[in-house]
This record gives sequence, structure tokens and C-alpha cells, in this order.
Amino acid sequence: MQGREKLREIVEAKIQLLEFKNPPAELYDPISYTLNSDGKRIRPMLTLLACQMFSEKIDDAILPALGFEVFHNFTLLHDDIMDNAPVRRGVPTVHEKWSVNTAILSGDAMMVEAFKLISKAPKQCLSEVIEVFNDTALGVCEGQMFDMQFEERSHVSEDEYLEMIRLKTSVLLAACLKAGALIGGATIENASLLYDFGINLGLAFQLKDDWLDVYSDPEVFGKKTGGDIVENKKTYLLINALERAEGRHEDELDDWINKTNFIEEDKIAAVKEIYNILGIGDLTLEKALEYSKKAFDCLNRIEVPELKKKELMELGKYLLDRAK
Amino acid sequence: MQGREKLREIVEAKIQLLEFKNPPAELYDPISYTLNSDGKRIRPMLTLLACQMFSEKIDDAILPALGFEVFHNFTLLHDDIMDNAPVRRGVPTVHEKWSVNTAILSGDAMMVEAFKLISKAPKQCLSEVIEVFNDTALGVCEGQMFDMQFEERSHVSEDEYLEMIRLKTSVLLAACLKAGALIGGATIENASLLYDFGINLGLAFQLKDDWLDVYSDPEVFGKKTGGDIVENKKTYLLINALERAEGRHEDELDDWINKTNFIEEDKIAAVKEIYNILGIGDLTLEKALEYSKKAFDCLNRIEVPELKKKELMELGKYLLDRAK
Repeated sequence: MQGREKLREIVEAKIQLLEFKNPPAELYDPISYTLNSDGKRIRPMLTLLACQMFSEKIDDAILPALGFEVFHNFTLLHDDIMDNAPVRRGVPTVHEKWSVNTAILSGDAMMVEAFKLISKAPKQCLSEVIEVFNDTALGVCEGQMFDMQFEERSHVSEDEYLEMIRLKTSVLLAACLKAGALIGGATIENASLLYDFGINLGLAFQLKDDWLDVYSDPEVFGKKTGGDIVENKKTYLLINALERAEGRHEDELDDWINKTNFIEEDKIAAVKEIYNILGIGDLTLEKALEYSKKAFDCLNRIEVPELKKKELMELGKYLLDRAK
Repeated sequence: MQGREKLREIVEAKIQLLEFKNPPAELYDPISYTLNSDGKRIRPMLTLLACQMFSEKIDDAILPALGFEVFHNFTLLHDDIMDNAPVRRGVPTVHEKWSVNTAILSGDAMMVEAFKLISKAPKQCLSEVIEVFNDTALGVCEGQMFDMQFEERSHVSEDEYLEMIRLKTSVLLAACLKAGALIGGATIENASLLYDFGINLGLAFQLKDDWLDVYSDPEVFGKKTGGDIVENKKTYLLINALERAEGRHEDELDDWINKTNFIEEDKIAAVKEIYNILGIGDLTLEKALEYSKKAFDCLNRIEVPELKKKELMELGKYLLDRAK
């Protein structure tokens, strides 16, 4: 069994070996550019970790694992066009560096490259791996559409928000795990438990991410906090604050949301104060903990020796405890 | 063996059965909208015709055949964004009717739907069908990128143009045929011959299409001729005219290409006159005939009773003889 760091090195080395050198360069260069930017490679690591829970060898899982990483980066590429984002991971986005048309088309090619890699799963589980990938890919598109729609709406319920982040974030993590398990020869039951682990881990992760944007130590978090508050982003925190605020707090919150001229620090401080009064921070952490418990409960129920679960459990904990 | 019209009816009925009804509606409605517009369903018919050359039953080929149709329509959807086209098949394009973001995202989902259908190929040839599909999907992206680049360039060679249309048009027709043959149980040799039939048929088809835009009878062709001339579109005709024109004709052609204020009919008449003097129309038809001969030569070499080839041969002839 290999440690997480070793697996990450394997993933990184294999990504470098992927060749996107066919002409026309303008189609393939943005793919290399996107893949070589500084990603955490969480998704392919999940596939490999899931595989080695059930199998001594991870060779068969490597190309499909890269497929999930390529797919994830494809979604970032297209999402950045839709969100009109100028920068990703500290460098210009593809549509900024090249053009919107190039970003659309290179993204399309990137999705095909992802599908090519996924299709390298061994024959005995090829249909199952492809099925979980396809269903997930559609889910991610659905999640992105809900996300865009929510930004235009004045009211979003907590359930709607949780369903959106399940689709936009969780299903892909879950699919990486399930595919790795299937390639490793897991039973359907164990593969499904890993899938559910991924769903709940993803939800806990995203809720923690929402919380970190408001409550983390900027020194440790590595970026300014309060960005979501400034942009009125409909996070778990804002949705619940809007649900719970009454009287003066409700009016104040509405005022800050509708204000177009303000000093950012003032808005962050004022909204954070309302969050504190309403106990929104703790509420978010409790919900994250609830999903986190569900996640690790699924992991515990998988019928393999505890030692086999160690690396995945640690990666899960790292994702939830991270400060950045 | 079923006739072409019967197969088209089957394709049409099966397309209507595809359900794109998950929420969010804004993601899936544009897929139904695109698929229900008036397409000729050539690609899925090619798959079914190829399959029934080698097999009594075409059931296994139906979903993959629809996958090719969905993929083709996905490329139209994204191409229309890149080309900023307002209308397709007489109705507003998706990015006009909804928005660019919706068109990007629904297109992405549509590509996944295509993968899903392709992945329904029978297990014994699943890897091979997926491989030909993936290679083709990348080729189509490459072709579209070349096409966009050529529009920005002042000079494009005949070879570059032929390679572009091979990628943008031919490889998909060829892949539809090869996949159908593989599903029908054809040998690799016969499947490859059908692939080559498709490549050459596609090239002949596109050259004829270029020719029709200038020389067809508008009454029969069903649309105004000369559109490519007005837009300086780098067709086989213009590329060869630029290659061959000398002296006065070269100057005249350059003038018309660079003119920004003109009466469309004047430009069409003048450029057509230069084409006539240089024999560009005949040159194009000869080249189309050359590919057409190659195509039917491949079909002839396939080792099945001639009767089995009849429907495909007739579809090929229809595509090349069509006036619209």
C-alpha cells in the first residue's frame, strides 16, 4: 500500500506524460496549460486510494484516475467562461489568455480526453466505470446550471443549496472513489459505501469552505476572508441568515445585500456580526460535522481490514481540517 | 434488410423517446430543442446501414447510432456560439434563444448524453466503438479550430483545406459507418473499408457543397447562392481561384475580397465570372468525382453480397447528387 504523498507523485508524473501535442496547437496548448497549473490532484488520489483498499496493484486505475482529473479541470475551464473569471490558481484563465472561442473548443476537446482516459478502465468493469462517470458528468452540469440560476434568484432554500453542492462538488468525488473501488475489484456494496462516503465528504467539505470564507484566519487560510459576503454569494451561511433573521437584523441584512456603494470591510464586519448574533457560524460547522460523521460512518462499514482504510481516512480528515 | 426510409423512421421515433426531462429544465430543454429541429439524420442512418450489411439485427446499433446524432448536434450547438450564428435550420440558435452560458453548458451535457448512448454498444466491441468515437470527437474539434484559424488567415493551401474538411466533416461520417460495422460483427478489414468509404464520401460531399453554393439552381437548391462568395469564405473554389488567378484576374479577385462596400449581386457575378474563366467550377466537380470514385471503390471491395451494399450505395449517391 502506498502513502498519499507517493500516490500524489505518481499522479503528477503521469499527468506530465499525457501528450497534447497534435496540431492545431491552439486547441491542445490550453489543455496542458490548465492541467499544469497548481491543482491538488485530490480526485485522482481518491481513485487510487479507493483502488488500493481492494487490490494490491493500482496500475489499472491510473489512467481512469487521470481521466477524473482532466474532467475536473475541464469543468473549471468552462465554468470560468460562464463566471467571467479572469484568474484561476494565480494565472489568467484560458478565455482571458486565448479567447472565449478557444476556451469553449479546448474545453470540449478536454472532455473527450477525459472520456478517453476513463475508457481505459479494465474490460471487466468498463461499463460500470463509464456509467458512473457519465452520470456524474451530467450531475456536474446540472449543479453548475443550478448555481448560475441561484445567483439570479432572491430566495434559495437550504435544501436547494445542499442539492446544488451535492451535484457540483460531491458527485465527482464520490464517482472517483466508486470507480477506483470497482477497478480494485470491490463488491457493489463496498463500492456504494465509498460512493456515499464521497457524497457526504463533499458536502462537509463545501460547508467548511463556506465557513472558512468568513471565519478563517487570513494568515493561515492564505487569502482574504469575506469575499462571499461582499458578493452576496448564496452560501450556506447567507441562506440560513436570511431564513433566521427577524426585525432589525433582517432589515440590516437586506440593506447590506442591496447596497451598491460600500466599504468592503464595513460590509464584512456588519454581516459577520449578524451571523454571530444568529449563530450561523456554529450552525454551519454543526451541519458540516453531521455530514462528516455520515461520511466516516460509511467508511467504517466497508468490509476490509482497518489498516486498508487508513490513508483514505487521513485524506478525508485533511480535507475537512484544512485551513486553506 | 430495411430500406433507408424505414431506418430513418426508426431513428426519428427513437430520438423522440430520448428523455431530457431532469431538472434543471434550462439545461435539458435546449438539448430537446436542438435534436427536434429538422435534421436529415444522415449519421445514425449510416450506422444502421453499416450494421445491416453484416447482421440481420440492428437493435444493438440503435442507441450508438443516436449517440452519433446527438454528438453531431452538440457540435452544431457549440459551433454556432463560436460562429455567432443567429439561426440554424430556420429557428433561433440556442445561444440566441437562451444565452451563451446556457448554450455552453447544455452543449457540454449534450456531449455527455452522446457518450452515454455510444457506451451502450455491445460489450464485445465496446472498446473499439468508444475508441473510434473518441478519436473522431477530437478530430472534429481539431477541424473546427482549423476552420476558425483559416478565417483569420490570408492564405490557406488546398491540402490544408482538404485536411480541415476531412476532420470537420468526414471523420464523423466514417466513424458512424465503422461503429455500425463493428456492432454488426464485421471484420476489421471490412470495417476499415467502410471507414475509408466515409472519409472519401465526406470529402466529395463537402466539395460538392462548396460548388452548390455558387453553381446550383436557387429554385432547386432551396437557398440563395453566392453566400460563400459574399463572405470571402475560404472554400475549395476560392482557394483554387486565388492559387490560379494571374494579372488582371488576380487584381480583380483581390479587389472584391477587400471591398467592404458593394452590392452583393455584383460581387457574386464578378467572382463567378473569374471562377468560370479559370475553370474553377469544373475543377471542383472533378475533385469531388475523384473522391466519390475512391469512396465507391472502397464500398465495392467489401466482401459481402452486392445486395447488402445497395441501400448504402444509394444513400451515398443521394448525398452526392443532392441539389440541396
